[in-house]
Amino acid sequence: GFAKVDHHRELRQGYPEIIYCQGKTTEHVVGIVKSMLEKGSNILGTRATEEMYEAIKAFYPVVQYHPLAKTITIKQKEQEVPSSYIVVVTGGTSDIPVSEEAAITAEILGNKVERVYDVGVAGIHRLFANIDIIRGAQVVIAVAGMEGALGSVIGGLVEKPVIAVPTSVGYGANFGGLAPLLSMLNSCSSGTAVVNIDNGFGAGYMASMINHL
Amino acid sequence: GFAKVDHHRELRQGYPEIIYCQGKTTEHVVGIVKSMLEKGSNILGTRATEEMYEAIKAFYPVVQYHPLAKTITIKQKEQEVPSSYIVVVTGGTSDIPVSEEAAITAEILGNKVERVYDVGVAGIHRLFANIDIIRGAQVVIAVAGMEGALGSVIGGLVEKPVIAVPTSVGYGANFGGLAPLLSMLNSCSSGTAVVNIDNGFGAGYMASMINHL
Amino acid sequence: GFAKVDHHRELRQGYPEIIYCQGKTTEHVVGIVKSMLEKGSNILGTRATEEMYEAIKAFYPVVQYHPLAKTITIKQKEQEVPSSYIVVVTGGTSDIPVSEEAAITAEILGNKVERVYDVGVAGIHRLFANIDIIRGAQVVIAVAGMEGALGSVIGGLVEKPVIAVPTSVGYGANFGGLAPLLSMLNSCSSGTAVVNIDNGFGAGYMASMINHL
Amino acid sequence: GFAKVDHHRELRQGYPEIIYCQGKTTEHVVGIVKSMLEKGSNILGTRATEEMYEAIKAFYPVVQYHPLAKTITIKQKEQEVPSSYIVVVTGGTSDIPVSEEAAITAEILGNKVERVYDVGVAGIHRLFANIDIIRGAQVVIAVAGMEGALGSVIGGLVEKPVIAVPTSVGYGANFGGLAPLLSMLNSCSSGTAVVNIDNGFGAGYMASMINHL
Amino acid sequence: GFAKVDHHRELRQGYPEIIYCQGKTTEHVVGIVKSMLEKGSNILGTRATEEMYEAIKAFYPVVQYHPLAKTITIKQKEQEVPSSYIVVVTGGTSDIPVSEEAAITAEILGNKVERVYDVGVAGIHRLFANIDIIRGAQVVIAVAGMEGALGSVIGGLVEKPVIAVPTSVGYGANFGGLAPLLSMLNSCSSGTAVVNIDNGFGAGYMASMINHL
Amino acid sequence: GFAKVDHHRELRQGYPEIIYCQGKTTEHVVGIVKSMLEKGSNILGTRATEEMYEAIKAFYPVVQYHPLAKTITIKQKEQEVPSSYIVVVTGGTSDIPVSEEAAITAEILGNKVERVYDVGVAGIHRLFANIDIIRGAQVVIAVAGMEGALGSVIGGLVEKPVIAVPTSVGYGANFGGLAPLLSMLNSCSSGTAVVNIDNGFGAGYMASMINHL
Amino acid sequence: GFAKVDHHRELRQGYPEIIYCQGKTTEHVVGIVKSMLEKGSNILGTRATEEMYEAIKAFYPVVQYHPLAKTITIKQKEQEVPSSYIVVVTGGTSDIPVSEEAAITAEILGNKVERVYDVGVAGIHRLFANIDIIRGAQVVIAVAGMEGALGSVIGGLVEKPVIAVPTSVGYGANFGGLAPLLSMLNSCSSGTAVVNIDNGFGAGYMASMINHL
Amino acid sequence: GFAKVDHHRELRQGYPEIIYCQGKTTEHVVGIVKSMLEKGSNILGTRATEEMYEAIKAFYPVVQYHPLAKTITIKQKEQEVPSSYIVVVTGGTSDIPVSEEAAITAEILGNKVERVYDVGVAGIHRLFANIDIIRGAQVVIAVAGMEGALGSVIGGLVEKPVIAVPTSVGYGANFGGLAPLLSMLNSCSSGTAVVNIDNGFGAGYMASMINHL
Ligand SMILES: Nc1ncnc2c1ncn2[C@@H]1O[C@H](COP(=O)(O)O)[C@@H](O)[C@H]1O
Ligand SMILES: Nc1ncnc2c1ncn2[C@@H]1O[C@H](COP(=O)(O)O)[C@@H](O)[C@H]1O
Ligand SMILES: Nc1ncnc2c1ncn2[C@@H]1O[C@H](COP(=O)(O)O)[C@@H](O)[C@H]1O
Ligand SMILES: Nc1ncnc2c1ncn2[C@@H]1O[C@H](COP(=O)(O)O)[C@@H](O)[C@H]1O
Ligand SMILES: [Mg+2]
Ligand SMILES: [Mg+2]
Ligand SMILES: [Mg+2]
Ligand SMILES: [Mg+2]
Ligand SMILES: [Mg+2]
Ligand SMILES: [Mg+2]
Ligand SMILES: [Mg+2]
Ligand SMILES: [Mg+2]
Repeated sequence: GFAKVDHHRELRQGYPEIIYCQGKTTEHVVGIVKSMLEKGSNILGTRATEEMYEAIKAFYPVVQYHPLAKTITIKQKEQEVPSSYIVVVTGGTSDIPVSEEAAITAEILGNKVERVYDVGVAGIHRLFANIDIIRGAQVVIAVAGMEGALGSVIGGLVEKPVIAVPTSVGYGANFGGLAPLLSMLNSCSSGTAVVNIDNGFGAGYMASMINHL
Repeated sequence: GFAKVDHHRELRQGYPEIIYCQGKTTEHVVGIVKSMLEKGSNILGTRATEEMYEAIKAFYPVVQYHPLAKTITIKQKEQEVPSSYIVVVTGGTSDIPVSEEAAITAEILGNKVERVYDVGVAGIHRLFANIDIIRGAQVVIAVAGMEGALGSVIGGLVEKPVIAVPTSVGYGANFGGLAPLLSMLNSCSSGTAVVNIDNGFGAGYMASMINHL
Repeated sequence: GFAKVDHHRELRQGYPEIIYCQGKTTEHVVGIVKSMLEKGSNILGTRATEEMYEAIKAFYPVVQYHPLAKTITIKQKEQEVPSSYIVVVTGGTSDIPVSEEAAITAEILGNKVERVYDVGVAGIHRLFANIDIIRGAQVVIAVAGMEGALGSVIGGLVEKPVIAVPTSVGYGANFGGLAPLLSMLNSCSSGTAVVNIDNGFGAGYMASMINHL
Repeated sequence: GFAKVDHHRELRQGYPEIIYCQGKTTEHVVGIVKSMLEKGSNILGTRATEEMYEAIKAFYPVVQYHPLAKTITIKQKEQEVPSSYIVVVTGGTSDIPVSEEAAITAEILGNKVERVYDVGVAGIHRLFANIDIIRGAQVVIAVAGMEGALGSVIGGLVEKPVIAVPTSVGYGANFGGLAPLLSMLNSCSSGTAVVNIDNGFGAGYMASMINHL
Repeated sequence: GFAKVDHHRELRQGYPEIIYCQGKTTEHVVGIVKSMLEKGSNILGTRATEEMYEAIKAFYPVVQYHPLAKTITIKQKEQEVPSSYIVVVTGGTSDIPVSEEAAITAEILGNKVERVYDVGVAGIHRLFANIDIIRGAQVVIAVAGMEGALGSVIGGLVEKPVIAVPTSVGYGANFGGLAPLLSMLNSCSSGTAVVNIDNGFGAGYMASMINHL
Repeated sequence: GFAKVDHHRELRQGYPEIIYCQGKTTEHVVGIVKSMLEKGSNILGTRATEEMYEAIKAFYPVVQYHPLAKTITIKQKEQEVPSSYIVVVTGGTSDIPVSEEAAITAEILGNKVERVYDVGVAGIHRLFANIDIIRGAQVVIAVAGMEGALGSVIGGLVEKPVIAVPTSVGYGANFGGLAPLLSMLNSCSSGTAVVNIDNGFGAGYMASMINHL
Repeated sequence: GFAKVDHHRELRQGYPEIIYCQGKTTEHVVGIVKSMLEKGSNILGTRATEEMYEAIKAFYPVVQYHPLAKTITIKQKEQEVPSSYIVVVTGGTSDIPVSEEAAITAEILGNKVERVYDVGVAGIHRLFANIDIIRGAQVVIAVAGMEGALGSVIGGLVEKPVIAVPTSVGYGANFGGLAPLLSMLNSCSSGTAVVNIDNGFGAGYMASMINHL
Repeated sequence: GFAKVDHHRELRQGYPEIIYCQGKTTEHVVGIVKSMLEKGSNILGTRATEEMYEAIKAFYPVVQYHPLAKTITIKQKEQEVPSSYIVVVTGGTSDIPVSEEAAITAEILGNKVERVYDVGVAGIHRLFANIDIIRGAQVVIAVAGMEGALGSVIGGLVEKPVIAVPTSVGYGANFGGLAPLLSMLNSCSSGTAVVNIDNGFGAGYMASMINHL
């Protein structure tokens, strides 16, 4: 019975092992990384600090840190990469940390990723100027704070699955991302689903799953 | 001192007297209408029932009822009407009752009104097909439920004051209009202000004030 | 420019035209259906009443009504159907109306759909008894009210994209579906995205998009 | 098509370019300012730190910093200024930072601005003592925290458009500005619209638009 | 010990016995009334239906029903009535049911009550026209829905204890009385305390206590 | 007219002038204090820092600071003090800062105050041990965080006006004082009214008003 | 593996089978009851209508209906009943439906139950008058709406596990039971845990589990 | 009477005295500890800092500090310990501080405790691998943040009372533990009750009560 419960995890062997570093000590993260390295895994650490990176670099120099995304990545094995790509679109420049978390997650999971940043609805001509690259993608990740209208607008323009990521960018009645979250959940455009506020990782993971089908 | 407190109300003489009919009995509304008619006022009744209309028509046959807007209007005097116009834009057809309340309010207050309905962001080409009439207005009223993205998109396309009206159209995480309300308050487009959920009257009144400046 | 904005809609020609019937009169719906029939379209009406169905059957007898899902469907053209299938899983029997909306949406959009109902976490052995059919799907739609734990549990067991649909089934601190909505958004299982409370249609549409990639 | 989408932006050439400095590094802001200076634009930076100001002053000494408003302004060209004025009214002294953001925004956009501060409803005689200057304005910006009653009281006294700005001043059941926000949205005085909590910039921008009609 | 716990109830003998009728059957209420009549008590029934009143009148004809307040009162004994009075002030006419509940509660508890209705801040001159009768009271009950600004304005004008009663009158972002509740709790005027939404009874009871000190 | 609006403030001359120090600089507070001293007023500063106190002591050595209450008091004139007293009751020791703000406010306004601290319902025998001093008061201030049950229990035991003060003491689903706030507003005991979360000042002020009637 | 997952259900054989009737048709419920009767099970149907009861009585006359609790019970086998008892305590008479659901659930699960009703904190002497029967129980179920203080007070008086059930009895800022729910979760008395609003069944089930340990 | 109110506390003599250290100064805690030591009590201090521990160790060296749980424990007397045990289960490693507070509370109250950590539903096979030790317990404490599904899953698998503890672990739409709190309250598994967010102490105390019955 349990073999049954667990057997799908074998299929994930090519995947990186993932560490959610927030709330862990540097020592804890280093320990996890060391045991993963022994298994030969690719590694993705999200919400990682520069200090964690330095501690890993000390014994494994080819580790990479992405300060905007706050991710640590280690590539020991090649992944099979589909020819189709994922596009990550943001409303503003403040949404970039979340979208970089999404993009790097998708890349380490074996995907080509295009970035189209700062094309929010306040200046919608910027979105249209990039519409072909967005429509060419297999999956769209739409990252936006403030009122989160970007998700709906893209959903209406593109006939591909859209994963909307609300961010906590904003103030006042934004309530820490509640405004774009509700906005995205209520999108009147079909073909959109939503992940948690600031959850770039979750969007990148879901997009990768879809891109690998 | 009190003369001072009150003297601005003279300036409003040309304005209709306004009755908020919700929660009032038909008899109460009829009584108010009768005393206003004696003063020679134009009259606007909002949130009025058909029964109220019938009761008024019985003694004042030229009264008008607008079933979608649920408004009663009586015009006894002419109003001065500016040459510029107000445009009322809606996301969907379900938003029409609220926008008709706005439009009829603006009309009885002495304004030309253009209606551009059902041009929400799920099919944004419909909005662009009407962009000239929207841009030609002195003030824009943007009425939308669901996620309320229409407000931001119009705000980004038009260099005129936009009054955004969230509606309670939607379900689930719409929470009775909370989603479009927060969305509109957080709009990343400049030049937008917001009225209460379903408050077509308030938007029409504010737009009229601006159009008469 | 506008041709550009709109040209992707041609790709949707095979798709059914979709009517959201809630808040529309029977006459309004009948009118829309008639004009769609002329164009030769397949038709999906969601949140439709039996009265609407009867009115359409009067002039177009092969129309189908699904009382649980409250959908009206008309098939005039064949759709291309992928060999892979979508599975719709529910926690309880009260979630069936929402999941039928999802299933019928997916079917009219040209998908094979498997239903696995009433396998919620209170009796988790029922879920395991059906795990193979769930794992065999291309996309999983997980529909649950109450606390919505089904989404996370399936997410942890299946390496396929999961679209989670919170339902308003429950009472008290369920707050009309808020509890399963938050639960699903916070899922600690990767590969899950969420649509609005009770939005079976949205889940079916998104799943179809993914299944057609 | 796209020319059409964008052409209104030409009309904005006289306007300052606007930078929302929050969440940007000093280097990022300096870079934006430099490229704007080259274009000969007037510049408004909101939510700017003193450090940003010092960095700009180093190469462009006539830049101005307004510590209360936390704005940076640079005036390279003259703006046409209407003869009518905007009045900014606050309930208390703690609301001054937000109202200064509104006032300076309106000024850099080419408006005369009058300030009437600390006239909240706890001491309503102070409001009456200033009623003539408020009534003389073309547009009123009413800035208040705590319970936000100022918006309604002014709305009832003045027959001009009122833009109400809730502030996050308060504690306990103020919930970060939610109390005055709801209060202002529910105002029983006609002619009031609301912007986001603490959004002095948005109110100043909207008021300027109205004052320039 | 228990005698101690309970002995203060003797002091209340002059007081009416109070029945909260909501959620009780007519038979249940009739039963309670009969046993109270035997004890010779004065009786106040709040949230009572006309049916309950008719059932009581059948055997006790001098019972009184107040349809606006939905209260039933029976006076068997005289109460001592202080010479000072309580004033009940409302913002609008829709608030009258709640304020009548307050007024009748105060009266049956042995107080003189003055009513000043429909003097909300949208037409603040009406409030000033009645300021002397308000200032002359021992305690002020301020009843208001919508944004609830009346509480603060009266608190600022009157140097007497103000009991503020938010009502559920309003719509949209009023959220069933939440807006005036928060507004009144955050009042920047000293000397105000708040009771539950629509709790006219509680305000009348508290005011009576104060007036009897 | 305005004399009328303002004339009641003469009645307050015996009262201290009150400064809400939060959000003011030390210099600002010092300036206000100096000008009040010239007028011969008694002074109450709430939410004051030790630094503010030191700055005032430098030029006015008899100023008093109450570190728990964070209040500054200066007494230049005697106040008339009623023979009846106010009692301040707290649930726990963590509620003492808020209740000291209430107590000191009441004292500087000219009242005798009794303190009964740490008698919350988790150990209700402590409350009974102090019931006589509570029942002997003219007004009761009940200060409690956590679930705020103290307000209801005292309201049920005492036939005097109770002013309930919710505090932000607690964690988790306390939501910054929301739990005791709602609890106190819903009290099933008559004779209770509520002030804002942590608003000891407001409770002390209201209690003083009642005690001086 | 699965045998393992499921084997504990055998232990439940003595237990009744439970049907949550809300949202099910009478036919559906009848069908479930028939198949359970064949298995010889005891049956508990909660949230059942009188119509469901009549339909069952038609073929199984000894079925019992409890109109207050809205439960259907059928006893085919004897249960072992511990000598200790469960006490169900309510604040008011309006809480009785919820507490009867709890009591009947506990009884059909094989427990002796004592009922102590209408002993809320507004008249706390009634609680003390019943304290011995409460303290004598093995588990206490405390059912209360309004502010829910009963839970804390009992928790402080009794050294036994308390299961607190908030009810939706109340109005205004009760928010459908949110007030007593938060109150009970924040209880400052140790030894209390909480179930969902109005979930009498859940409390009875949990209490039975504890009483059978 | 009062002897009656209080007499059950004698039964608690074997129990430790408990100090809630949060918001207390080190001096205050030291003072309380000293007076408890004199009485010969066992002591449990929760939410204690390392500084408090050092201050106590200075005069009472055998005191123990548990840095994860942030508890201080002193054992002066032996407690009677039942042969049955309590199991504490967590979803993730971040939930360990809360579950250690629960475990240590239960231990100092005289219970055997088993810990099963990091077995959340994202990898449900880990839960099954530990199912026997969980089912063997007398009471289960289920500690989880994120979406809190662990509570329901365990409730469905185990026929013992489950005390669910939501934690504030998570981000975005977790809203400080609201998501798992609502999830646990709405659990569709019978036999679960809930304590406040992060209230490990309360769960440990309740579990101990049940284990000692
Ligand atoms: N930024 C993120 N947000 C939400 N979940 C994450 C994030 N990064 C990683 N995860 C999840 O956390 C798991 C690892 O958690 P842990 O075992 O605590 O390191 C991964 O398998 C992911 O499912
Ligand atoms: N204080 C503010 N609050 C909200 N929006 C602002 C504020 N200041 C500037 N903005 C908006 O932000 C835009 C500039 O954003 P950015 O391109 O990120 O610098 C401006 O065009 C304004 O619409
Ligand atoms: N702790 C407090 N909470 C709420 N309001 C206060 C507080 N302390 C003083 N106040 C009010 O603030 C006013 C003084 O405000 P200010 O003029 O800004 O110093 C007083 O008249 C009081 O009404
Ligand atoms: N972590 C905790 N969360 C909630 N309540 C606690 C906690 N620790 C202790 N308590 C309670 O606080 C009481 C002690 O409070 P105090 O007298 O302020 O030290 C104990 O009897 C417990 O009921
Ligand atoms: Mg789309
Ligand atoms: Mg614009
Ligand atoms: Mg998965
Ligand atoms: Mg006005
Ligand atoms: Mg006052
Ligand atoms: Mg009382
Ligand atoms: Mg207890
Ligand atoms: Mg169970």
